[in-house]
Amino acid sequence: MASTANALDINSSTVITPEALLAHWQGHRRLTRRVIDAFPEDKLFNFSVGGMRPFSVLAMEFLKMAVPIVRGVATGKWTSADDLPSPSTKAELLTLWDQATEEINALWPTIPAHRFAEVDKAFGHWENSGIGTILYGIDNEVHHRGQGYVYLRALRIEPPAFYDRS
Amino acid sequence: MASTANALDINSSTVITPEALLAHWQGHRRLTRRVIDAFPEDKLFNFSVGGMRPFSVLAMEFLKMAVPIVRGVATGKWTSADDLPSPSTKAELLTLWDQATEEINALWPTIPAHRFAEVDKAFGHWENSGIGTILYGIDNEVHHRGQGYVYLRALRIEPPAFYDRS
Repeated sequence: MASTANALDINSSTVITPEALLAHWQGHRRLTRRVIDAFPEDKLFNFSVGGMRPFSVLAMEFLKMAVPIVRGVATGKWTSADDLPSPSTKAELLTLWDQATEEINALWPTIPAHRFAEVDKAFGHWENSGIGTILYGIDNEVHHRGQGYVYLRALRIEPPAFYDRS
Repeated sequence: MASTANALDINSSTVITPEALLAHWQGHRRLTRRVIDAFPEDKLFNFSVGGMRPFSVLAMEFLKMAVPIVRGVATGKWTSADDLPSPSTKAELLTLWDQATEEINALWPTIPAHRFAEVDKAFGHWENSGIGTILYGIDNEVHHRGQGYVYLRALRIEPPAFYDRS
């Protein structure tokens, strides 16, 4: 029994698979999409608390990081997304969001397995492992999305449930 | 060369090791500790925005999840931390924080590798893989800590740098 358990442990010593990490991130991204959609159109572009950036600007930051990070980890080529259009409506922002969802899904399976551990200079500047850079992008989205929850509460709007990633 | 690269890919197909995930989380926890410490004592316990919970209450939620999640994933035994004392000063809260840091470091290496993928009912209620439950705890901390950043900005206090996990 002991040796069987050890063999199982060795076989399943991956903490999380690439597929599960992508699913985890896309679950977060579905929640972020619902937070964008929960804002009244004008508040999405104009409202904030404490002199911070409106949620539309935070959402554009997520978009400028997401696909370029996946592409950079996959290929070693770090390209900025400064050419992304600046949306002026919620519908335009959500369209960009959905396009990024598809691009991430298409690029993700092309990440060579060794690139998760390999250290690289993301965007020519931030030295980190591939997984470190990916987690930074996800964490940055969760961090700023939490700020969007405060904006919504300050507007007396009930935010989407944090635990719902469907 | 191709077969060497494939062999490397197979050997490093772990997206993140248990040790690296612990280091990642403890980096986040060091940042959360700095956010707690950035609040003036009274604001830590009394201030919020939009009718939300003060940051001390959010920090206690992180503590009630952290060690019990690691213990539950390690052992399959899910015990609540409702017996944690309720701190009434910043110093008491930081002491609880530092105790949890040590407990997490001690428990983490006892997690059997297969438990990251194994599905369990966390706290007898939330069905998820071990890694899913751990990531939920980390994400919940990042999410609510981001809200603490808004509280600090609303108080005109510069929050700690998000990227600094030292």
